[in-house]
Amino acid sequence: MITYSSGNHAQGVAYAARALGTKAVIVMPRNAPAIKREATAALGAEIVLVGPSGIERQIKAEELAAEHGYVIVPPYDDEKIIAGQGTAGLEILEDLPAVDLVLVPIGGGGLISGISTAIKSSKPNTTVIGVEPEVAGDAQASFRAGEIVKFPPEQVLSTIADGLRSQYVGTITFEHIRRYVDDVVTVTEEEILEAVRILSENPKTVAEPSGAVAPAAWLFHRDSLPASNASVAVISGGNIDPELLRQSRF
Amino acid sequence: MITYSSGNHAQGVAYAARALGTKAVIVMPRNAPAIKREATAALGAEIVLVGPSGIERQIKAEELAAEHGYVIVPPYDDEKIIAGQGTAGLEILEDLPAVDLVLVPIGGGGLISGISTAIKSSKPNTTVIGVEPEVAGDAQASFRAGEIVKFPPEQVLSTIADGLRSQYVGTITFEHIRRYVDDVVTVTEEEILEAVRILSENPKTVAEPSGAVAPAAWLFHRDSLPASNASVAVISGGNIDPELLRQSRF
Repeated sequence: MITYSSGNHAQGVAYAARALGTKAVIVMPRNAPAIKREATAALGAEIVLVGPSGIERQIKAEELAAEHGYVIVPPYDDEKIIAGQGTAGLEILEDLPAVDLVLVPIGGGGLISGISTAIKSSKPNTTVIGVEPEVAGDAQASFRAGEIVKFPPEQVLSTIADGLRSQYVGTITFEHIRRYVDDVVTVTEEEILEAVRILSENPKTVAEPSGAVAPAAWLFHRDSLPASNASVAVISGGNIDPELLRQSRF
Repeated sequence: MITYSSGNHAQGVAYAARALGTKAVIVMPRNAPAIKREATAALGAEIVLVGPSGIERQIKAEELAAEHGYVIVPPYDDEKIIAGQGTAGLEILEDLPAVDLVLVPIGGGGLISGISTAIKSSKPNTTVIGVEPEVAGDAQASFRAGEIVKFPPEQVLSTIADGLRSQYVGTITFEHIRRYVDDVVTVTEEEILEAVRILSENPKTVAEPSGAVAPAAWLFHRDSLPASNASVAVISGGNIDPELLRQSRF
């Protein structure tokens, strides 16, 4: 199987391939953090590095799939991937049945599509809010415009949240977001790093910047969120460069 | 109230004092990690620094208590403190009723006294094993000798696990350990740091060296532990210097 991903989806595919005893090829951007490349390679996947834009990875993966007959496992804009991500929504409902507010990071939109669909289908009065870095706020712009808005690559590349550097959400994920997500809010780069620090100090949880945007919204933008009695902020990844984690803690 | 502690008990007392609206004075060793001093000060406690030996802290705390009428909250060798620590054992039984092996760090012995008493009183066929740094293995020596063995300060100070640098267990805690603990094992300094790294990478949990000794025993000494189907390794603290965490991750 083959996929194109800046990081955590890559590890998921590599893990699944190893579990199934098959081969995984991962097309990653050259600027993906070393820790993500290493973690993926450690799971036995073959890594192909390309340029930083999302479309480059996808084209390369499609070329290799055509050449070698690999099955493509897309990172987000795919109904089965969204269904898989939806299990995180089911887990939230199981662990906290009283939940009334869920904050979820948005990159390509796969995770929030799955979670919001699962939650709104089971407990429709729960609010689901997407969170993005302000500089990569394409999903918020799209949500407000009612159509997919593309952000320029140099802008989205400027966020430290390397897993959320997508220039636009997918066509399938956008339909889920329009239907099931109540709002999309953004957080600043400083707020993201501060959330990484707070998570490491108090719940003692290692979160990468992309994984910390939802807690950042809860910590720093509570006044723009609906009142809630039982809130969940999804921490979607912890593959942080140790040096960055150290810096965030001073 | 006043206590003498190298770190985590200090934070507990400072937290409790703030919650009760009263004053906390904490006598800490000068060599306690900055992060522990800062976390304690951030909770509003007054900090008094003394030399590195356990007895210096205790004497200073007793002097200040006599002078100002403070209530002493001892760090471990006290029945009420042990009873409080026992709630961790009750939580283990609640979260994992099938538990058959529990690994617990030993410094002064308060935590393991409480946990082992709670667990053996509720589910006597569960094995409880203490874990110490090899260089501060006074509890293992005491357990084997059947009497409290004291280790020289320069030896216990050589462990990176600053919360487990006690030279000897308490007289009350030793009675609990003799009665309720099945064995005491030790781990090396390298194993402790490797466990800190693994915890930060995989369960994404920030553990300090003292907090990582029980997982280290599980990771590196499983062959000397009894066979088990449902094991718990207690992670007792996460106040790690960010620079040390970074180093551990390379």
